[in-house]
Amino acid sequence: MTQNDPRLTPLIAALPSTMPFNCPDDVERALGRPFAARIGANECGFGPSPKALEAISKAAPEIWKYGDGDCHDLRMALAAHHDIAPEHIMIGEGIDGLLGQLVRLTVNEGTPVVTSRGSYPTFDYHVKGYGGVLHEVPYTGDHEDPERLIAKARSTGARLIYISNPNNPMGNWHDADVIARMISEVPEGALLILDEAYSDFAPASATLPIVPDDPRVIRMRTFSKAYGLAGQRVGYAIGAVPIISAFDRIRNQFGVNMLGQVAALAALHDRDWYTNILQWTSEARVRIASIAEANGLRPLTSATNFVTIDCGADGELSKRIVAELGKHAIFIRMPFQPPQNRCIRVSTGNAEALDAFEAALPAALERARKS
Amino acid sequence: MTQNDPRLTPLIAALPSTMPFNCPDDVERALGRPFAARIGANECGFGPSPKALEAISKAAPEIWKYGDGDCHDLRMALAAHHDIAPEHIMIGEGIDGLLGQLVRLTVNEGTPVVTSRGSYPTFDYHVKGYGGVLHEVPYTGDHEDPERLIAKARSTGARLIYISNPNNPMGNWHDADVIARMISEVPEGALLILDEAYSDFAPASATLPIVPDDPRVIRMRTFSKAYGLAGQRVGYAIGAVPIISAFDRIRNQFGVNMLGQVAALAALHDRDWYTNILQWTSEARVRIASIAEANGLRPLTSATNFVTIDCGADGELSKRIVAELGKHAIFIRMPFQPPQNRCIRVSTGNAEALDAFEAALPAALERARKS
Repeated sequence: MTQNDPRLTPLIAALPSTMPFNCPDDVERALGRPFAARIGANECGFGPSPKALEAISKAAPEIWKYGDGDCHDLRMALAAHHDIAPEHIMIGEGIDGLLGQLVRLTVNEGTPVVTSRGSYPTFDYHVKGYGGVLHEVPYTGDHEDPERLIAKARSTGARLIYISNPNNPMGNWHDADVIARMISEVPEGALLILDEAYSDFAPASATLPIVPDDPRVIRMRTFSKAYGLAGQRVGYAIGAVPIISAFDRIRNQFGVNMLGQVAALAALHDRDWYTNILQWTSEARVRIASIAEANGLRPLTSATNFVTIDCGADGELSKRIVAELGKHAIFIRMPFQPPQNRCIRVSTGNAEALDAFEAALPAALERARKS
Repeated sequence: MTQNDPRLTPLIAALPSTMPFNCPDDVERALGRPFAARIGANECGFGPSPKALEAISKAAPEIWKYGDGDCHDLRMALAAHHDIAPEHIMIGEGIDGLLGQLVRLTVNEGTPVVTSRGSYPTFDYHVKGYGGVLHEVPYTGDHEDPERLIAKARSTGARLIYISNPNNPMGNWHDADVIARMISEVPEGALLILDEAYSDFAPASATLPIVPDDPRVIRMRTFSKAYGLAGQRVGYAIGAVPIISAFDRIRNQFGVNMLGQVAALAALHDRDWYTNILQWTSEARVRIASIAEANGLRPLTSATNFVTIDCGADGELSKRIVAELGKHAIFIRMPFQPPQNRCIRVSTGNAEALDAFEAALPAALERARKS
């Protein structure tokens, strides 16, 4: 444990040095050889749009310039794509970056914030990092529970309420009318964060229309999942003008890198590739589910680019399965809170990755159950 | 003026929406045609290393993966490059990103911070953004003044002291022994930020050896200037372990984009291109100075990739020169505080850019003086 620097603020001095996730590249270095399957971080194993790669190649000689501090072209394209005014859109360094900024905008030391126990750890990291007090409610039947979240927000006077739809790490979703009702019940003084990182993969019934002037909700989208650009760090928030414009008071003016902007723009316009990704993801979900079933495990229905698999025991067994698969160079993750941690979580990937997973799973399961 | 969202913290609600800089791409859009010379943001107009472009091209198909959350390979290479342990290095989203994080680590509402009036506005933006109280001292003879800064830090009990060496926007520098003396005088409880964004261009006499365990100073370096990667957003801090490790409590785990990491690594290893950039920059400085002199203006000696030019009057004349050059599609900037704003600031660039500057300057000067 490193000694605290005496110049840190008391809040920072009291924070742990714990990052939200294990880092895939760290895991791979520890393994000592390349992953046979990198299917743990819900990345898009089918790769980015060829048009995004072309755009990167074309723009690369220009990287001596700062990227556009207003992300103008991408913001205009997103406005057209969603048929809303560009003033309702804030582009940032992934949803992670936007969540951090949003917490900074709204949370002081002691500010109550409501989320579900075992949902997105990076959100929790930001809330704690700004001194907010996290009030967690349990999942209900593997779902984040809108009613419990709203009730907890009322009882604690929460400033922020977090929900993802579809849900990570369980893969399920709420239909749009459930979320619409939740929004209608957001207490005065609270803001609902609707994390839609996986919404591209969800059924039509989960698609909530955008009401851009609604001040009760801010929605987060990303190019890291269905657009295959996780390494590029581009996400965006959609919300009412008073909250969206507030990001301009604190964000890094030139923070969104240039190649991220051009790649996202090209990927957004390549609807054919996007359609392919959705199709391939859907097929890979079916295959992962069938591999799970062939091994006596229970796959949960997924509206995302991963399948959460109930292994029928507790978090200790799941941990051992993750570790045993790791020895076979298969990188997966698992939910980190009971009872969700009875599951493992397998991201969709290409045939080669799923072949490797299929080949390794039986022996990994056997050893995990014995040890 | 947009109405404040009622859920903003009082600190945020009181902040202006003013970004540190005008954005070059905004200026270009307003102009309605491409710049003839983009020589205002101290970018590297000679372009990035061809090896960096090769590295981007090779890594681009992998951008569906998150970048390495530990920036391991780049950090190890920087450690070897500087001959220090990797624990003394924190890589971030440009110096801008690192400055924001450092302020967050150390500044609460009301924390006193010392800087020079008219130095780096993005630092001021971050300090105000976290509620710090900026105490500014004037430049002395166009230099940031170490003695005044230290004296002000003592009298205010400052937590942070900012100095750049070489200096932006004036282009001059202090020799290493002056900075070493300043470090030795940093008051107990304060941390000196030594912004070395331009140190690659400085004379050997300005090169301060790295003493990695010195807790009194944190040094900031970037790939945006001499390495020609401004659009990629990669910078790093060098400091004692207790302050460097503290960044891990708050930074975005996967915040440094993948292509930025691989491009920076390749650029760092391409010493030939780096040497070329220094040579071309030096030649361009000579040429900018001679253009200035041919127009009756006084170029200041520069240890950076720009030349600051004394126009012999006040900020109003400088503003008009910047505006008139803008009409010729020449993008430059100027210092924003008196008396430094008697100057304009011209970044080094390739021959085509300087040709355009040279051609436009006489008429721009004439009109600026008449209006």
